[in-house]
Amino acid sequence: MRIDVDALHDYAQGCGILGSGGGGDVDAVVMQATAVLSANGPVDVLDLDELPDDALIMPVSGWGAPTVGIEKLGSGKEGATLAAAVTRWFGSPVEAVMCGEIGGGNGVLPLAIAAELGLPLVDADGMGRAFPEGPQVSMHLAGLSPAPVFFTDEHDNVVTLHPVDGRWYERLARTVTVAFGGTAIGADFVMTASTARSVTIRRTVSLALELGRAVRAGGPAAVTEVGKGTTVIRGKVADVERRTTEGFARGTVIVDGTGDDRGRFLEIHVQNENLLATEGGRPRAMTPDLITLVDETTGQAIPTERVRFGHRVVVLALPCADLWRTERGLAAAGPAAFGFDTSYLPIDRAERG
Amino acid sequence: MRIDVDALHDYAQGCGILGSGGGGDVDAVVMQATAVLSANGPVDVLDLDELPDDALIMPVSGWGAPTVGIEKLGSGKEGATLAAAVTRWFGSPVEAVMCGEIGGGNGVLPLAIAAELGLPLVDADGMGRAFPEGPQVSMHLAGLSPAPVFFTDEHDNVVTLHPVDGRWYERLARTVTVAFGGTAIGADFVMTASTARSVTIRRTVSLALELGRAVRAGGPAAVTEVGKGTTVIRGKVADVERRTTEGFARGTVIVDGTGDDRGRFLEIHVQNENLLATEGGRPRAMTPDLITLVDETTGQAIPTERVRFGHRVVVLALPCADLWRTERGLAAAGPAAFGFDTSYLPIDRAERG
Repeated sequence: MRIDVDALHDYAQGCGILGSGGGGDVDAVVMQATAVLSANGPVDVLDLDELPDDALIMPVSGWGAPTVGIEKLGSGKEGATLAAAVTRWFGSPVEAVMCGEIGGGNGVLPLAIAAELGLPLVDADGMGRAFPEGPQVSMHLAGLSPAPVFFTDEHDNVVTLHPVDGRWYERLARTVTVAFGGTAIGADFVMTASTARSVTIRRTVSLALELGRAVRAGGPAAVTEVGKGTTVIRGKVADVERRTTEGFARGTVIVDGTGDDRGRFLEIHVQNENLLATEGGRPRAMTPDLITLVDETTGQAIPTERVRFGHRVVVLALPCADLWRTERGLAAAGPAAFGFDTSYLPIDRAERG
Repeated sequence: MRIDVDALHDYAQGCGILGSGGGGDVDAVVMQATAVLSANGPVDVLDLDELPDDALIMPVSGWGAPTVGIEKLGSGKEGATLAAAVTRWFGSPVEAVMCGEIGGGNGVLPLAIAAELGLPLVDADGMGRAFPEGPQVSMHLAGLSPAPVFFTDEHDNVVTLHPVDGRWYERLARTVTVAFGGTAIGADFVMTASTARSVTIRRTVSLALELGRAVRAGGPAAVTEVGKGTTVIRGKVADVERRTTEGFARGTVIVDGTGDDRGRFLEIHVQNENLLATEGGRPRAMTPDLITLVDETTGQAIPTERVRFGHRVVVLALPCADLWRTERGLAAAGPAAFGFDTSYLPIDRAERG
């Protein structure tokens, strides 16, 4: 499988759907990816089984509040800078790039970096969606250490972290991100293909491509079918409240039902991602399942930072990867992990609630 | 030459004198150094000519506001953590430790780390005194890059910086220091002995030992003789104004002359170090020359953070290393570099002013 400039747009749409409202803005990264794919040609997407056991894989992610990310573009050299630091540390070359999180711009950025480096992109990621916190990643749940963690910025600064635990990782990473002016590109959980086979969420790049093709072919209905999800509500955005605090974009979005859903109101709680949707105080969908707003007409995902009053949307709920529904997965990324006083109900059961 | 527990106290006194009021508190670091020298035995002090050309030297320094440093002690493992990171990066073992700056606690800390690692301490440093800013170091003046820069804390976190320029170095280093809770231990300008021979200020460890012995043997008068300096004023501290901003301890100290100096007032301007001494608006001594307050009776140096109202002191001025009196040296560390609107006058001429 290959992603060229044409497939890029489907892929980016799919990453937007998987972002659950977050993962960073897609459009700015698509501009970068378009330029580098045009210049360097398509990127091969490889299943982990196609790579040699000892092939070094570099997962990359963008860091920082998405409301900043919109205005700030990279230099296009970040991948080479990170790969050089990784190679120096591990003493062997990077053989493939991976998405730390497939959702939003963070799913597209690794594609641009793979194209920049002339390397394949692995058909896997660490989340199967987007999450706001560093430790909410499958490699962490599997007991891997993220260190060394490499960060770079558009100036070519490099900072390498060896934090002693997850709390220090968050603290230092956010500090570096702020010092870099609000956004950074990072590589963590660098690992071999044999390790990656058992600690990642697999075939999520393929899934993003399929979801993106569904958007183009059939709009919201096709997306729920491909993603095995449901439609929560169709309506108009009636209120948006947002603030950026401690590097997170937090807020709430109210959707006022239209058509068959007239008279219903859905409240969506946001912390970078859409985390909990309630109706009359009762949960309809919640993390770790995905809650994605899409444009009613085009089916294109709307990231939290682009939701506007009056926007006509369909709110979709898609099931998360199985890993997140385990006890460890829910402890890391269930509603309680974000301070919500509600037990996890998978979207099928939440819908009936 | 060796420094054992007995010589440590002379050495620490000498570092205090060379601190020009700064370089971090000596006493807390002496406690650490005493413990590790007692456990591991004395440290060899080697001239750079005694080391093989390719021997890797690790300069270390403490970072952070000295008013924080007083309360915060290290884990005693920082040296091993830094040396492991340096060795991993450069692919060869650290063979000697060096003081980034000889002044204050930063002159004593590398001795403790050398003892911890069972390595020699090099008879040289990057300043011949203490300075508040990272780039005010002889290796920088010689055109060396500080990167990679390694930082660690008492928890064993490690952060490695590759800043693109000095401005980014300062910004990232101070950011990391703040994230670490106010203080950090860093290694920068890691280099071979052959490089160090031409880019460091040499025999400053010997000088610190001689100054410390002079304190013990003859008080302030002996210190000025060994240090080839002068006495600016003898008096009582009449006013102390200090504040900690942006990681720096800033303020002013007024010394009210006593004895032969009755009726004279000296005003000392501080930014971590004593940088400028004026009398009736006329400069008496200024950076890059050293301005050190010593106890009138014991001759022991008084760091800026321990200066108290009523303290009876002698203010000494000692000439800086020749490097700092060159055009490049003055541009980096002369009075204008700290925002003082005065041209540099070496202490001999300033005294007559």
